[in-house]
Amino acid sequence: MDTFMQAAIEEARQGRDEGGIPIGSVIVHEGRILGRGHNRRVQQGSAILHGEMDAFENAGRQPAAVYREATLYTTLSPCSMCSGAILLYGIRHVIVGENQTFMGEEALLRSRGVRVEVLDDATCIGMMRDFIAAKPELWNEDIGV
Amino acid sequence: MDTFMQAAIEEARQGRDEGGIPIGSVIVHEGRILGRGHNRRVQQGSAILHGEMDAFENAGRQPAAVYREATLYTTLSPCSMCSGAILLYGIRHVIVGENQTFMGEEALLRSRGVRVEVLDDATCIGMMRDFIAAKPELWNEDIGV
Repeated sequence: MDTFMQAAIEEARQGRDEGGIPIGSVIVHEGRILGRGHNRRVQQGSAILHGEMDAFENAGRQPAAVYREATLYTTLSPCSMCSGAILLYGIRHVIVGENQTFMGEEALLRSRGVRVEVLDDATCIGMMRDFIAAKPELWNEDIGV
Repeated sequence: MDTFMQAAIEEARQGRDEGGIPIGSVIVHEGRILGRGHNRRVQQGSAILHGEMDAFENAGRQPAAVYREATLYTTLSPCSMCSGAILLYGIRHVIVGENQTFMGEEALLRSRGVRVEVLDDATCIGMMRDFIAAKPELWNEDIGV
């Protein structure tokens, strides 16, 4: 397992252990984690802090040249909001833990030239399956359903 | 002038007066402002709090049925991140102050069935022209350039 996806999974687990939605993300530049985060809908009553958004917020105000060379890791296929942030900052490489429990905007990202790799990671799939089975309403709220 | 666009402009002016980027937004449901906000890149060192995102964050955890019936007002054409949030929450009507100083993802929004109206408002255009002329680097940072 890639150590950066492992870090994203640790973020997801931390979110789960806080009673939140188990999705985590890290943004990596030149082999170093610039920002890491996890979904904070429950913990902060946030409508916008998905895992990827939290990672961007923690990475902070970076020059465009830095974001353009960064890779974003996320445990779950990125939704339209997080995909939009990826496009805004010109991230060109996204590594996705899994897209079986939710298929985000991978096609849109690819159509704009982003390289999207999907790992089909069993740990990521299991975390989301367990969470969706336990709290389907919370999951639906998070994806706007 | 529509009172809700006027409220978005007041948010933009507040942002400008704080030394920030003059873009504001309000989200309206059944004639009432659910959430309002302005760009907070400078004020909070935020990479994600564009005006529209700040309005979503302040509107908070609303049921999908509420966001689906809401209208989003923004002084400037929404970038890919903010357009992605609009799609995530199923907002079906977006009213844009202007798109002359920046053209966001209006075509993507329309292709997904969102009604996008552009007002070509002189106040909104003037605020952005003055800001971009005064602080071009800050503006480029905000749009990932």
